Amino acid sequence: MSGAPDKGRATRRQFLLGGAAAGVGAVGGAAAGATLAATAPATSPDPTASAPPALHGASTVAFHGAHQAGIATDAPAHALFLALDLRDGVDREALGRLMRTLSDDAARLSAGRPALADTEPELAPAPANLTVTFGFGPGFVARAGGEMPAWLGPLPAFGIDRLRPEYGDGDLLLQICSDDPLTAAHAARMLLKDARSFATVRWRQRGFRRAHGTQAPGTTMRNLFGQVDGTSNPRPGSAEFARTVWIDDGWLAGGTSVVVRRIRLDLDGWDRIDRAGREQSVGRTLADGAPLTGGGEHDEPDLAATTPLGFPVIPAFAHLRRARGEGGGEGAAERIFRRAYNDDADPSGEEISESALVFVSFQADVHAQFVPIQQRLDELDLLNTWTTPIGSAVFAVPPGCAPGGWIGETLLA
Amino acid sequence: MSGAPDKGRATRRQFLLGGAAAGVGAVGGAAAGATLAATAPATSPDPTASAPPALHGASTVAFHGAHQAGIATDAPAHALFLALDLRDGVDREALGRLMRTLSDDAARLSAGRPALADTEPELAPAPANLTVTFGFGPGFVARAGGEMPAWLGPLPAFGIDRLRPEYGDGDLLLQICSDDPLTAAHAARMLLKDARSFATVRWRQRGFRRAHGTQAPGTTMRNLFGQVDGTSNPRPGSAEFARTVWIDDGWLAGGTSVVVRRIRLDLDGWDRIDRAGREQSVGRTLADGAPLTGGGEHDEPDLAATTPLGFPVIPAFAHLRRARGEGGGEGAAERIFRRAYNDDADPSGEEISESALVFVSFQADVHAQFVPIQQRLDELDLLNTWTTPIGSAVFAVPPGCAPGGWIGETLLA
Ligand code: HEM
Ligand code: HEM
Repeated sequence: MSGAPDKGRATRRQFLLGGAAAGVGAVGGAAAGATLAATAPATSPDPTASAPPALHGASTVAFHGAHQAGIATDAPAHALFLALDLRDGVDREALGRLMRTLSDDAARLSAGRPALADTEPELAPAPANLTVTFGFGPGFVARAGGEMPAWLGPLPAFGIDRLRPEYGDGDLLLQICSDDPLTAAHAARMLLKDARSFATVRWRQRGFRRAHGTQAPGTTMRNLFGQVDGTSNPRPGSAEFARTVWIDDGWLAGGTSVVVRRIRLDLDGWDRIDRAGREQSVGRTLADGAPLTGGGEHDEPDLAATTPLGFPVIPAFAHLRRARGEGGGEGAAERIFRRAYNDDADPSGEEISESALVFVSFQADVHAQFVPIQQRLDELDLLNTWTTPIGSAVFAVPPGCAPGGWIGETLLA
Repeated sequence: MSGAPDKGRATRRQFLLGGAAAGVGAVGGAAAGATLAATAPATSPDPTASAPPALHGASTVAFHGAHQAGIATDAPAHALFLALDLRDGVDREALGRLMRTLSDDAARLSAGRPALADTEPELAPAPANLTVTFGFGPGFVARAGGEMPAWLGPLPAFGIDRLRPEYGDGDLLLQICSDDPLTAAHAARMLLKDARSFATVRWRQRGFRRAHGTQAPGTTMRNLFGQVDGTSNPRPGSAEFARTVWIDDGWLAGGTSVVVRRIRLDLDGWDRIDRAGREQSVGRTLADGAPLTGGGEHDEPDLAATTPLGFPVIPAFAHLRRARGEGGGEGAAERIFRRAYNDDADPSGEEISESALVFVSFQADVHAQFVPIQQRLDELDLLNTWTTPIGSAVFAVPPGCAPGGWIGETLLA
């Protein structure tokens, strides 16, 4: 996974973004970005941007690589999750055409170039770290006649679930992330235009985190409960991350799986609980996400610590303890990589907000890694008092591709 | 209208945003921001931010001033428009309490401080140019027993309208803008918590523009048609702006009116038209928004220019010509200040997008300025082929207030 500074087109792009002074003419079409992709770091602001302020709109994340972008790469501020249903009669051969086209669109748009036959090309030159990540549902793999991972299908039913079909399942997932909301909307439309003769939209969820530049890079995101969310997560690039996330054999080698669960947040209920109660429900402080047993955000919680009265400081019902399990934490088998987003939809009736966490996790094996955690949380987790899963979907995420290749080729070629 | 660098709290804020190295303790409560407000420029990044990258999360727009923020101030990337219906029995005295409370919330949040009794105070220290602008519908002014502007009420019916009640009217408008989507969501919830015993949510629309830093400041926004939208607009700070926007007598002196119309964009239809047709429908190029008669974006269109065949270069049906009218353009009586946002909602059925322009205009007199323009566009405007007004609301926007004052005091005090 590497990034493309794309020097050849920077001037033109800078111009279209409004950052250059005079009329620059050429609309070159060479894929300079793609060919530079192998050497640069994963996310790189345009190095040729001269005048202040540096515009992060020109920043790109390489589309091509061993793994798909949008997993190990930094999570941008905005996300759109689109699940499609394949139309009747779309066969293996058609799936190949579909994925070739969508991969081409994604590669161009990620580099800040218009899609082929882009109808709004003026919206393309500000990728702002755009990534497009594809996931295949069981219906897709079945039509492709490919080997079906044992874990690819609906999760086991959990007691806490109140699933709504309008947020469930699907044949093809598009995860579109960008630091710019207009770019994400444009990319979604271009991809869906090319997909529409093959598939219809089943559901759509959007997500947001703090805007690019609002806070220091590397700061853990906060969810709408105000919690620091994402602290204990394998670090992209580490051996633990690779072990946790990447599959290493079959057509999914270099790929992974993604679980997308829409979890409704009862903010009114949450707000009725005092701070101490809210902090105990997770086992971390609200101020900075440090474990209740002390230290900073990234210090290890002491699960054995007790209060003077002999109670555990991090209670038995705390989300952190339950999510970890007994032998949990770094290095454990039941690890997942979480990359969640916030969403708030239009409230209705007497409600003043309709908030959600769009829970997104990547793991090599859903059954071995995700399900045991969710089972423990289903059994006991004080956070369940204010959270309700209302959507759930699982997709196989194929590996990345080299320039000239396409996503899905290991299944369909 | 002036901004608050708020030096006293910058270190703490920078710390909470993740930009400072070590543990800074104090949670001072002094309104340093407000007292500094009179001297600084309208929008000011935190000057004490030391280490790169400078975090725009700490940037503030002053809440206090002769005019409300969110009108003449730069439009941030995100907006939430919330229209409330007053509950039965909320009388003039209650309206005063409501507006005192909401003004206090807005002032604190705009300065990056938590609202009183903020339940998620950790979401407050990144205002990212947060503004909250209040507008009063006819129901509000009636209960207040105030003088009713002649223009305050539903617009005349237009032939192109397909209005849906779920996007129409309302007693109280909150326009919440910020460069950070999490900040906007938090501010909306805090304001609605304090409003909920007085009012219910009638409708909500959100809006987005390019993210902060995606493009150079001062670049005109693009809408989801890909058009440069907002070129011919009175310039905030100019005499023309003041003449166009501010009311100068009665309880609305220093205030204005706002029209919020949700206009559905038929992107599929739009995409079937070639570029020349699309450019003629407005009278400007898609590439950079220049008039079809030549020059750059900000050069004046030549409405008299004809093609070699004798047809007008900017056709009779062009949006620009129709919006201007015969004696239009800069200096004309029928001017408005447009401050629109994009929105795309979840598509349904066979749709792949459900896009809108949240049209927002400020003007001193709706009848004298907005209505004649909308009437001309209703009669003839090629853009109508792909645009449909589905929501419409008008509010009186009271003036700003000094520190210690509150929005609505000129009507209610
Ligand atoms: C709305 C629902 C949820 C909220 C608000 C939430 C919030 C949090 C918070 C605040 C933390 C502590 C900080 C951190 O390490 O990120 C955390 C940790 C964690 N959560 Fe959740 N979570 C939710 C749902 C889930 C679900 C559905 C799962 C998986 C089934 C999950 C798995 C985990 C794991 C594995 C950890 C790290 C535990 C550790 O190793 O310390 N969470 N969550
Ligand atoms: C979805 C609907 C609309 C779209 C896509 C749209 C788009 C545009 C565009 C691209 C321009 C040219 C650039 C500019 O000066 O901003 C423009 C100009 C303008 N529009 Fe619209 N517009 C819409 C609706 C409206 C409505 C409802 C009104 C008022 C009733 C309006 C009033 C104006 C005015 C006054 C101008 C400036 C004309 C001039 O003085 O040159 N527009 N619009």
